[in-house]
Amino acid sequence: MEIQKQPSLSLGEIAARLGGELIGDPRVTVRQVATLENATNETITFLANERYLDLLKTTCAGAVIIGTRLRDSLEMPRIVAANPYAYFARVSALFNPPTAGEAGIHPTAIVHPQARLDASVHVGPGVVIEEGVVIGPGCSIGAGAYLGVGVAVGEGGMLYPNVTVYHGCRLGKRIIVHAGVVIGADGFGIAMDEGRWLKVPQIGRVIIGDDVEIGANTTIDRGAIDDTVIEEGVKLDNQIQIGHNVHIGAHTAIAACAGIAGSAHIGRHCRIGGASGIAGHITIADNVEISTHTLITKSITEPGTYTGAYPFASNREWRRNAVTLRNLGDLVTRVRTLEQELQLVKKEKS
Amino acid sequence: MEIQKQPSLSLGEIAARLGGELIGDPRVTVRQVATLENATNETITFLANERYLDLLKTTCAGAVIIGTRLRDSLEMPRIVAANPYAYFARVSALFNPPTAGEAGIHPTAIVHPQARLDASVHVGPGVVIEEGVVIGPGCSIGAGAYLGVGVAVGEGGMLYPNVTVYHGCRLGKRIIVHAGVVIGADGFGIAMDEGRWLKVPQIGRVIIGDDVEIGANTTIDRGAIDDTVIEEGVKLDNQIQIGHNVHIGAHTAIAACAGIAGSAHIGRHCRIGGASGIAGHITIADNVEISTHTLITKSITEPGTYTGAYPFASNREWRRNAVTLRNLGDLVTRVRTLEQELQLVKKEKS
Amino acid sequence: MEIQKQPSLSLGEIAARLGGELIGDPRVTVRQVATLENATNETITFLANERYLDLLKTTCAGAVIIGTRLRDSLEMPRIVAANPYAYFARVSALFNPPTAGEAGIHPTAIVHPQARLDASVHVGPGVVIEEGVVIGPGCSIGAGAYLGVGVAVGEGGMLYPNVTVYHGCRLGKRIIVHAGVVIGADGFGIAMDEGRWLKVPQIGRVIIGDDVEIGANTTIDRGAIDDTVIEEGVKLDNQIQIGHNVHIGAHTAIAACAGIAGSAHIGRHCRIGGASGIAGHITIADNVEISTHTLITKSITEPGTYTGAYPFASNREWRRNAVTLRNLGDLVTRVRTLEQELQLVKKEKS
Repeated sequence: MEIQKQPSLSLGEIAARLGGELIGDPRVTVRQVATLENATNETITFLANERYLDLLKTTCAGAVIIGTRLRDSLEMPRIVAANPYAYFARVSALFNPPTAGEAGIHPTAIVHPQARLDASVHVGPGVVIEEGVVIGPGCSIGAGAYLGVGVAVGEGGMLYPNVTVYHGCRLGKRIIVHAGVVIGADGFGIAMDEGRWLKVPQIGRVIIGDDVEIGANTTIDRGAIDDTVIEEGVKLDNQIQIGHNVHIGAHTAIAACAGIAGSAHIGRHCRIGGASGIAGHITIADNVEISTHTLITKSITEPGTYTGAYPFASNREWRRNAVTLRNLGDLVTRVRTLEQELQLVKKEKS
Repeated sequence: MEIQKQPSLSLGEIAARLGGELIGDPRVTVRQVATLENATNETITFLANERYLDLLKTTCAGAVIIGTRLRDSLEMPRIVAANPYAYFARVSALFNPPTAGEAGIHPTAIVHPQARLDASVHVGPGVVIEEGVVIGPGCSIGAGAYLGVGVAVGEGGMLYPNVTVYHGCRLGKRIIVHAGVVIGADGFGIAMDEGRWLKVPQIGRVIIGDDVEIGANTTIDRGAIDDTVIEEGVKLDNQIQIGHNVHIGAHTAIAACAGIAGSAHIGRHCRIGGASGIAGHITIADNVEISTHTLITKSITEPGTYTGAYPFASNREWRRNAVTLRNLGDLVTRVRTLEQELQLVKKEKS
Repeated sequence: MEIQKQPSLSLGEIAARLGGELIGDPRVTVRQVATLENATNETITFLANERYLDLLKTTCAGAVIIGTRLRDSLEMPRIVAANPYAYFARVSALFNPPTAGEAGIHPTAIVHPQARLDASVHVGPGVVIEEGVVIGPGCSIGAGAYLGVGVAVGEGGMLYPNVTVYHGCRLGKRIIVHAGVVIGADGFGIAMDEGRWLKVPQIGRVIIGDDVEIGANTTIDRGAIDDTVIEEGVKLDNQIQIGHNVHIGAHTAIAACAGIAGSAHIGRHCRIGGASGIAGHITIADNVEISTHTLITKSITEPGTYTGAYPFASNREWRRNAVTLRNLGDLVTRVRTLEQELQLVKKEKS
């Protein structure tokens, strides 16, 4: 991280804006956030996990954001907050506001005369905006992005460079779409017909709610007939694949490289681990947590944590276990035989 | 899905064009396809899976495409087809023909004077076409796509925006390449040499047959020395990785996020599940089906279905099983000991 | 592979430049490298794996590069090298030098007046270079690439088309970045706050050392606060995801589709298999090898090979094993019961 020339803020100003209990000199000023390890006296840090408590003793930070349990366990200037990580996020946003481009359309952008862009919109070089596109106030469309016929982007949206949005898709307010994302490509709709695959036209759209963020190179397929739907507040990490007609409930977060197969229906407030998979046409209840590298093959109706990664081991140990695994049926048979023989022995004895 | 202003067709016209047995008034007209749930009387729907038979009773569809087994189990206007899903695909194609761009080269596209483009080709804004590229009749090259030196695209090809094709690669007729796809990047060819990796030049090409479709953000590496080959009719979903010198047989379909390692040879008419992996240098026979999340580590010589995903469970149950799994060797030892002791007991008794 | 019109070299010239023991007529000339199977008498091939020894008998190659063990097992002109694959890589580089574009900025590129580009740099069509970017001698920036504010690229770097580098990231000398790569997008930093996710600004950078290669559509997130670091000589295959604040040690190679979660610290000279995963905040020692499809969930302190893929089987066999697996706890209980009963039987007997 480079400490940029941010305007500084006093702890008093921060607490006045964001709340929390300030303990220490309110005139202490900071100009950026920092980690415990790399903080300087011009920065404010935070402690969300008590495992790192030792680092507090050696940090050079000018101040720290801390939870209520640790309120009195240190001397330095501090802001006590019920949720120190969320408080930290807000402080960081004060010092690092999102930087949308300036209003205006770059002369190399190709904007269809029938597109409707608010005057405050920034359109970068080489952007292509097709007929019927509607872009709300304050949006920023990065260089080389492509918005197909009839796409809509709500107020305050931020599309990074080289994003592709196919025709008809609708993106909510304050959406953030990172570089390389593809929204609305055809789903994998093919019908086998006498030894050849026949393409099934994909005529649904992708409908995305407000406050959604989509990580780099993630792909979200358009619906086959009806729409693919991502509800408000969903957070998608990088390189996720969302199949056609998937429905993701509000405020669900999905980590990188996960794959959601067609027509899966995922509840609200779920947390889906990285590189996990959800099978097609199943339903996941609200508040379900799926672990990393786990494949969910049938519907889950109860909240809770579900796991299915194969435990790693040294290769030598793994090889031995793998052989046993392959012959698990034999082991069961041997145990059954033992049980029967032992019964016989016991019977004969009595 | 939005019902667009499509020209309507009567059931009589549809059956005349596509065959099938029409039962009901041939003058009934529809103007789009729909799902059972969201159909209106202006749309035609289909039932391919008898599990959804109940939905037929409540659908508002004007007509339905149905299999021969269910021919007489309903009253509404219907077309009976041997393969209702394939029939549906054809009906949908009537209402939703692919929309290639208009013939012509956008003034912002950069086309090398030594490239040969048929007069009917559409080239979008910002496209870059290098020396020696050949593009057949009816192709559409989306905005921001890049075609390297000597690339060839057969008749009727459709490349969506922001596709990259490296030099020398050859794409067959009627190919569909979705946004963000990269064809012909260097394979992972590195040689260890005294503690440092040495790059092995990747001088093969990617050769793709006719009627192939490639999903968004999929990558297909060029061959290391000889070529990477994708035969005709292959269907690749999104975010698939195909390593150098892979050979994929005709009409094989691969679901999203699968990875095929270098020099793997996959047969014809295979179905490879999502997020599955095929190890390098192995051979998969024709008509093999690989399940989702399965890693194939050695050659498969017989048709059939192969599976290797670890079954998920609640986290608590998984933890218990994982511990047992790690100690599977011990369990085998305990069973062997039991067998020996029981033999001893039986012997002593006799 | 097409045999291009390369200048030919005699075996004598090759051995003079690259060393090795030449056996046979030094005037034999070749003009390209080839595989054993597809070689012609104008090409030179290599044998690195003795499994393919039989192919040597039928190859039409003009010469072969071979290891010391096989020095005397054939008649044809040959160069004997300690590491035939590395030698082959060097020979191939003679015939296939990397082709950077010509020096100069394409008229359609948008270069900020405050960017500093060496006069030898090639900038392709539609490239966007923002304020404060610095590009060293001999770099080539492919069409449609985007370099954000303050990005630095060292001498001899090669960026293929449609690459996106976010602001502030620093790329070392001789870096190769393939198409569709995204460097410096926001990491997955979100804080839960009263039922809604709050974005944590991602203010670190990505710092990449010299001689790194990054495969197509790979994504490397910027640090949350401090930087994400990729040390020199690291080789990343396609579609890899590197989370925020990851640190990858020098000369580590990672195969396609792997995912490295945030703040993981990977050692030097590691080899990470395809589609494997490394959990967040853990440490992997130097010289560790991770197998394909393996999830590493805790730190590894010892060099060695670690594996965790579930062994595949025919679907029928897998189903049987999966049931047993799910009931592994029961099997353990049954074995324990057997052990106790057998003890009882033995006790009663004595």
